[in-house]
Amino acid sequence: MSIEHLHPVPHLVTALNGPLQQLESHLLARQSDIEAWFRQQWHQSPAPFYASVDLRNAGFKLAPVDTNLFPAGFNNLSPELLPLCIQAMQSALERHCPDARRILLIPENHTRNQYYLESLATLQDIIQKAGFLVRIGALQEEPGEARTFELPSGRQLLVEPLRRENNRLYVDDFSPCLVLLNNDLSAGRPAILENLQQMLIPPLALGWANRLKSDHFSRYQEVTREFSKLIDIDPWLITPQFLRCGEINFMKRAGEACLANNIDTLLQSIQRKYDQYGLDQKPFVVVKADAGTYGMGVMTVHSATEIQQLNRKQRTRMSTSKGGLETSQVILQGVYTFETWGDNQAVTEPVVYMIDHFVVGGFYRVHTRRGANENLNAPGMHFEPLAFAQPCITPEHHMAPDAQPNRFYAYGVIGRLALLAAAREQLINDS
Amino acid sequence: MSIEHLHPVPHLVTALNGPLQQLESHLLARQSDIEAWFRQQWHQSPAPFYASVDLRNAGFKLAPVDTNLFPAGFNNLSPELLPLCIQAMQSALERHCPDARRILLIPENHTRNQYYLESLATLQDIIQKAGFLVRIGALQEEPGEARTFELPSGRQLLVEPLRRENNRLYVDDFSPCLVLLNNDLSAGRPAILENLQQMLIPPLALGWANRLKSDHFSRYQEVTREFSKLIDIDPWLITPQFLRCGEINFMKRAGEACLANNIDTLLQSIQRKYDQYGLDQKPFVVVKADAGTYGMGVMTVHSATEIQQLNRKQRTRMSTSKGGLETSQVILQGVYTFETWGDNQAVTEPVVYMIDHFVVGGFYRVHTRRGANENLNAPGMHFEPLAFAQPCITPEHHMAPDAQPNRFYAYGVIGRLALLAAAREQLINDS
Repeated sequence: MSIEHLHPVPHLVTALNGPLQQLESHLLARQSDIEAWFRQQWHQSPAPFYASVDLRNAGFKLAPVDTNLFPAGFNNLSPELLPLCIQAMQSALERHCPDARRILLIPENHTRNQYYLESLATLQDIIQKAGFLVRIGALQEEPGEARTFELPSGRQLLVEPLRRENNRLYVDDFSPCLVLLNNDLSAGRPAILENLQQMLIPPLALGWANRLKSDHFSRYQEVTREFSKLIDIDPWLITPQFLRCGEINFMKRAGEACLANNIDTLLQSIQRKYDQYGLDQKPFVVVKADAGTYGMGVMTVHSATEIQQLNRKQRTRMSTSKGGLETSQVILQGVYTFETWGDNQAVTEPVVYMIDHFVVGGFYRVHTRRGANENLNAPGMHFEPLAFAQPCITPEHHMAPDAQPNRFYAYGVIGRLALLAAAREQLINDS
Repeated sequence: MSIEHLHPVPHLVTALNGPLQQLESHLLARQSDIEAWFRQQWHQSPAPFYASVDLRNAGFKLAPVDTNLFPAGFNNLSPELLPLCIQAMQSALERHCPDARRILLIPENHTRNQYYLESLATLQDIIQKAGFLVRIGALQEEPGEARTFELPSGRQLLVEPLRRENNRLYVDDFSPCLVLLNNDLSAGRPAILENLQQMLIPPLALGWANRLKSDHFSRYQEVTREFSKLIDIDPWLITPQFLRCGEINFMKRAGEACLANNIDTLLQSIQRKYDQYGLDQKPFVVVKADAGTYGMGVMTVHSATEIQQLNRKQRTRMSTSKGGLETSQVILQGVYTFETWGDNQAVTEPVVYMIDHFVVGGFYRVHTRRGANENLNAPGMHFEPLAFAQPCITPEHHMAPDAQPNRFYAYGVIGRLALLAAAREQLINDS
């Protein structure tokens, strides 16, 4: 297959999905090489237990912008894909802890969020159907009582207080073999989870207390450099350009010069690639906390001067992240999303889910009041989840490259590249 | 949960599905123990590469009657369950041959059967979607040409001649890493497959040239003895009673006394269990070839005298099995199937599919002109496949024990017990 169109060519057609359709058909044509490569990679760097990856599909570019190693949103997956989750969960648990029968699930601390509780109930259901006993033990500041939540789906969810005896965790008289974290540790590493006798996955070192997005994207750059060489494409087509700034204090206006400088540098760098591909788009940069998820402290800028003009309210918003962690380090990125849904052209962003190295499905965040250059996962932001109608593992060679199964396959490939980057972080954190 | 009703009790209610509903609810209640036990078993005896298991659901009893280690019929599975097959295939191939990229599929010799060709095309599709290059190489008496079949589904299937150079197999210039057999070797072990440099799975020793159904069911008895102890049931509820006869020659009427004797013994033994459970059913025995599949040489008898009264045509039919193998050994079994479908009460028989140790789905053989005591997989016999509407891995504890997901779960448990018996055969054949 000719892939010359995937290389930068001046005055390329500006139809936005041109290069992406070519990327999709290229991934399709090289499917067996890609899958063989992934198999080899997972052998060298075992996949994290589970993950969700936020992608941005700019038409000319498809890249991840966030990788969550303590995924929520399982309730947004299509019920038809639940069996895939169950089967992948069986594989994952067999690999990580073959003797486990009883599993303790530790959720996020803000357990009143109904969307999150629905996700937790779905995750519990997946693990139960996979053949395990599962109970939910909450991290709490002080000993509390068990609580049953009635969920909008009609399900009930029992959340019990966690108890530690010597080096073992319990809820009630339930003694788990394995502790599964679904809490991203934005608020730090709780002492109750340190030095457990039981296996704890994912390891504490993968929580946001120890992890930086910029480290992840450095690994991701390595991964896409190798992958792009394998399938002979420009890595830029699948890699978000980024820069980072440490030692920022938005309230005290410390580090502002560095930030302004890096914004300019990144905007110019993005512009050069747009020029190279003949893309008539205005570059932008999203500034977000380097540690933490949930899109708090996120803003879109089109020039460095916007940083100097922030008002007090904007500064306050930028300076705190989830769990009260103060934002002192930021990462800069800017990938458009040009996928839209419905007659109103609502902006969408695909999110891909993986359990072990298996892609088990995904959904679109659909937002009617956001622009193509804005973060779609921000506080107070309401999105409609739109489940992927099909799995990401049924590429159809006889269909158009942008037909649904093939587009979903492409999402699954890019999602796994981000997963592989996380696997390499994990190896480094383990050592 | 009280399980006393699962033990033999005189004068039990004769409603046929009473005891089975109790079995189903019992399997459901002990799900996490069952799954933990299976995980441990697969660790000790790795599952065969793939299998299909024919079950008979008598209402009061649910048991396998045939285990095929070179399964066809993949085309009868629901398209919605294809992703489960793909994911399980990825696991299976990773486990058996992590470095494989190119796979050679060796089909049955009678490749003009359109049903079989559709199954082969589906199997090829599953392996391709799992990320491998697959070509089909046929065992032929003499070198032939590649042939393209146009299938009723609209698909095309390319079947190429097999070529051996030194100790490697090829089709055309395609050099496979792995050879996957989908031929049950009823016609013996072909020399071209012996001592290959490439990995060949399943091993030749699992073909019908080396395997006996009675060995399989001996292992199955061991397996269900252990399993029944674990979950505290009478093994008879899930185990077909059987006897075997060697040295039979139907044409020469040799071994007839042994056969008649064993039929009587088995009928009496079945009657005793029926009496024990208060079941008002007439025992019967199916006589079939001990080696080979496909239900050739199969007959149902209700008394030993029927054997003595066979006419010449019946003797000829009984004396040959698939691939021309002469039937000299037979196995005797007799499990009713009381599951029916539709207004006409068509007799059905569930068939469960597994790839590695994962249950990936199944279908019902539905037959309107057969009785509850007859084999539903016989030559010239036309059945309608009815795909399982749901997977076998989504047990729903809040639903009735005989609700579809729970009935399918029960099928998956019994199917896996037969798979485990085959895994133990495999270990013995390997050593």
